Amino acid sequence: METRAIQNGHKFSSDVMPLPNPHLVQMETDILYHIAIATNTHDLPSLFGDVKFVCIGGQPSRMSRFAAMVSRELGDPLPEGQTPQNYAAGTDRYAIYKTGPVLAVSHGIGFASLSVILHEIFKLLYHSRCKDVKIIRVGTSGGLGIKPGTVVITKECVNGMLNNYYEMPVLGKLVRRQAVPDVDFVNDLKRFADKMCCSFPTVTGKTLSVEDFYEGQGRLDGAICDYTQDEKTAFLKRLSGIGVVNIEMESLLLTALCHKAGISCATVCVTLVDRLEEDQLTNSRETMVEWQSRPLTLVTGYIKHKLGL
Amino acid sequence: METRAIQNGHKFSSDVMPLPNPHLVQMETDILYHIAIATNTHDLPSLFGDVKFVCIGGQPSRMSRFAAMVSRELGDPLPEGQTPQNYAAGTDRYAIYKTGPVLAVSHGIGFASLSVILHEIFKLLYHSRCKDVKIIRVGTSGGLGIKPGTVVITKECVNGMLNNYYEMPVLGKLVRRQAVPDVDFVNDLKRFADKMCCSFPTVTGKTLSVEDFYEGQGRLDGAICDYTQDEKTAFLKRLSGIGVVNIEMESLLLTALCHKAGISCATVCVTLVDRLEEDQLTNSRETMVEWQSRPLTLVTGYIKHKLGL
Repeated sequence: METRAIQNGHKFSSDVMPLPNPHLVQMETDILYHIAIATNTHDLPSLFGDVKFVCIGGQPSRMSRFAAMVSRELGDPLPEGQTPQNYAAGTDRYAIYKTGPVLAVSHGIGFASLSVILHEIFKLLYHSRCKDVKIIRVGTSGGLGIKPGTVVITKECVNGMLNNYYEMPVLGKLVRRQAVPDVDFVNDLKRFADKMCCSFPTVTGKTLSVEDFYEGQGRLDGAICDYTQDEKTAFLKRLSGIGVVNIEMESLLLTALCHKAGISCATVCVTLVDRLEEDQLTNSRETMVEWQSRPLTLVTGYIKHKLGL
Repeated sequence: METRAIQNGHKFSSDVMPLPNPHLVQMETDILYHIAIATNTHDLPSLFGDVKFVCIGGQPSRMSRFAAMVSRELGDPLPEGQTPQNYAAGTDRYAIYKTGPVLAVSHGIGFASLSVILHEIFKLLYHSRCKDVKIIRVGTSGGLGIKPGTVVITKECVNGMLNNYYEMPVLGKLVRRQAVPDVDFVNDLKRFADKMCCSFPTVTGKTLSVEDFYEGQGRLDGAICDYTQDEKTAFLKRLSGIGVVNIEMESLLLTALCHKAGISCATVCVTLVDRLEEDQLTNSRETMVEWQSRPLTLVTGYIKHKLGL
């Protein structure tokens, strides 16, 4: 990796992928701390300039498997026994793999963990002078009234108060960011799933996106629970009534931050349980690993199709 | 690990460590999904019944180093070259190590990631019939007006609106959880730091705890920034004026959930930067690794002292 390759006496350019931060062009060096990558130690345009798809998911192991799958499908499989190179190997907070124009990135659990990696991936794309990048979350979720194993492409997401925005304090004031989905991208993914892929069911629907797995999702099996079974059931039915088909912990922030930054994104999650039936994830690890591969299969096929392969 | 050891025909007992969830006693089996541990596959009282301290921090690698350090200090060092056993090895979402009565657990980044592991650790302690457990976060933070490398023991934490509670939607309604610190525990840690430990400075102070590293902490170097340098500086000075000495992303939720569950907790974080001076973390990795070991050193010494060793 070359040193200071993009630092040849000029400041960062914003002519390719503008980001909504006027301060960025003033910076001589940018340290992307949580992925152990910096503009003065890595030649970002050479390393990442060709990226067109960023696929993000919770676990490093799943994203490593995904990178290996993409390598195979794009016709450049890894040698037997070799695992994909982790570009964020200087830390264990996140993992980043790259296969051709596809980045595979882990984001951990929840809004805050996703927020940190999104800021740094947006800046990585910006410093790398990438163009026309799409970001896809490939994840897991709880379903509502659909068979576990079904893949959901989110067409709208709502927060825990059932509003379609993400709200956060900035300098002591609440800032509201609308979670505006890229409807064309969602429809394109659904058309691909229906016509050219896959052996498993795929639906589009509304996603509840919250910052907690237990109370925030109306589970009765957390360490803390102040509501009754009846109150829980009434809430889940209310969700179902407004079109919510799955519940997870990241799509709202992803959609809101990508919209703000002008980057196209989508969320593709498999459901591991029907929350109208139960709270706990009782299926075998093997079944769940197979289900977890479904969003990866769909998205890999979609990328291959879009690349004309 | 024995199977179904605590499932001999009886439901879970709540006579040792009650948790604020009346539904728990109705459950025949409890799958702690995100740590790949369950009551019907693990003999929890045998494995974890002696736990008295749970130390939590962001990164698995740091908590592994911490477990090795505790092993040495408690007089039972790991054999040369051996790494601590990860009890959550069935997943890569979190890592759990155990050394005598000390658990070392990774929590990832932010409230949501911490929330998932806290619910599951609380239930692990409950199912293991633990008594009188203390939870300590050993982490990193940005400082305000104090020298980088200083260790801060949080005596009060506030959210991004500068209120000392954590607020979250539950069944579509906002629930407010007061972040009430355990003042005696904080003072005990500070007394230990002053009298019996350490070569680095340790202070107590107020902590701002938010769900974002960039905008939420008033940084100018994120992918998105809608405010000016002057507005940022005014906010940081306002924080400093009300006694905030550091900024991080977990203590508020930790304090709020532990208070709700009746469990004693504290937050001990080193500062990696003085945010009144800069946003980026520009010190060398080696310096930061040394600084990151400081909370671990302080807490290991404290635990050793409390165990009478």
